[in-house]
Amino acid sequence: MDLKALHKISYGLYIITSRKDGQINGQIANTVFQISSDPPTVAVSINKQNLTNEFIRKSKVFGVSILAQEAPLSLIGQFGFKSGRDIDKFKDINYKSGTTGVPCISDHVLACLEAEVINEVDAGTHHIFIGRITNAEVLLEGVPMTYAHYHQVKRGSVPQTAPVYVPKQTGREEKMDKYVCDVCGYVYDPDQGDPENGIAPGTPFDKLPEDWTCPVCGAGKNEFSPES
Amino acid sequence: MDLKALHKISYGLYIITSRKDGQINGQIANTVFQISSDPPTVAVSINKQNLTNEFIRKSKVFGVSILAQEAPLSLIGQFGFKSGRDIDKFKDINYKSGTTGVPCISDHVLACLEAEVINEVDAGTHHIFIGRITNAEVLLEGVPMTYAHYHQVKRGSVPQTAPVYVPKQTGREEKMDKYVCDVCGYVYDPDQGDPENGIAPGTPFDKLPEDWTCPVCGAGKNEFSPES
Repeated sequence: MDLKALHKISYGLYIITSRKDGQINGQIANTVFQISSDPPTVAVSINKQNLTNEFIRKSKVFGVSILAQEAPLSLIGQFGFKSGRDIDKFKDINYKSGTTGVPCISDHVLACLEAEVINEVDAGTHHIFIGRITNAEVLLEGVPMTYAHYHQVKRGSVPQTAPVYVPKQTGREEKMDKYVCDVCGYVYDPDQGDPENGIAPGTPFDKLPEDWTCPVCGAGKNEFSPES
Repeated sequence: MDLKALHKISYGLYIITSRKDGQINGQIANTVFQISSDPPTVAVSINKQNLTNEFIRKSKVFGVSILAQEAPLSLIGQFGFKSGRDIDKFKDINYKSGTTGVPCISDHVLACLEAEVINEVDAGTHHIFIGRITNAEVLLEGVPMTYAHYHQVKRGSVPQTAPVYVPKQTGREEKMDKYVCDVCGYVYDPDQGDPENGIAPGTPFDKLPEDWTCPVCGAGKNEFSPES
């Protein structure tokens, strides 16, 4: 059995939001799909350990903010690698409350859906929530972020927004080491730098500013290890 | 409520197969996702009216053939716009039987999964089948076909494999009419032609051979109408 076969399945990338007792929360998910057009119905799969799961089960409503391809890693990291149990994920995030009271992210989002849960399926580690759409809004024209695109960016190949220029090494052509974030798996590739955060291509890991943090999850430099 | 928001959800494109009483069948679906990694589990949503739905409910097994981006429209049309009640969809198709007895398509497929149904959810017009993976195989390295890519091709924009050359019109710059297939919605665009079937870019609809058929569903020329 070659489970790499599962990596060929295509997904988008979404921020799933919900609310409970006046609190709001959200998290990254890739498993959203429409399952009926009349009435419009979607399904989303959420890990049972996540706070958003708890919120959805309680309030029976959820929102889907569909990310644009140009969404920055920092936004994905904010909702993907942190828990609403520890931080307020919506600090410094623009959003508006939908008709069901769940937040819809305003920036880097193509469209927002709101849904009322009509069925909840136990799927082992996850619940599948089946929701009837109660509101749907297009915010921005553009290309949706796909999981495949995110992984390419995350693994350090050239983002579409990156400068093409990669400075040559002077002296002998020394291959600069890549460093992997122990927290989220992001790979810092010196050839690419971290242009989103002002780090030029060609910057070796040990020349990064001491206050540089993982663009995905915010971990410090000391939480990186050389790629083996 | 702007339901165009739902068009921003990303999907792949798959042939879902099953068997029943010695017969096999398959159909196109875009709604496949992994819902658990341990044990590996996937969900797929299948319209209740489809023969494949009947087969899966009876045999409790299904296969997922993950299409490559270069899969021809004819393969998608064969499994997407015809019913196994009318034709043998596997005629002239290379496939092999998996360990559960469901067919895995051999050509233009990146990977094949087989699954045993552990749960079936009624979702209105569709059933969601939740299946434990029993076999998984990678057949080909490449880019998966996405629903977005298929729609771009289907709507007649330039396929990645198409010749770049588009002959200029002589005389006055007459805009050639596009024609829409009444059966499946495929748009014949004279500027693009149908290179997969030997029709050069620049061929007007009325100059297509009389035995030309819709590259997606096989409908005849008389089942096309001018695009309004």
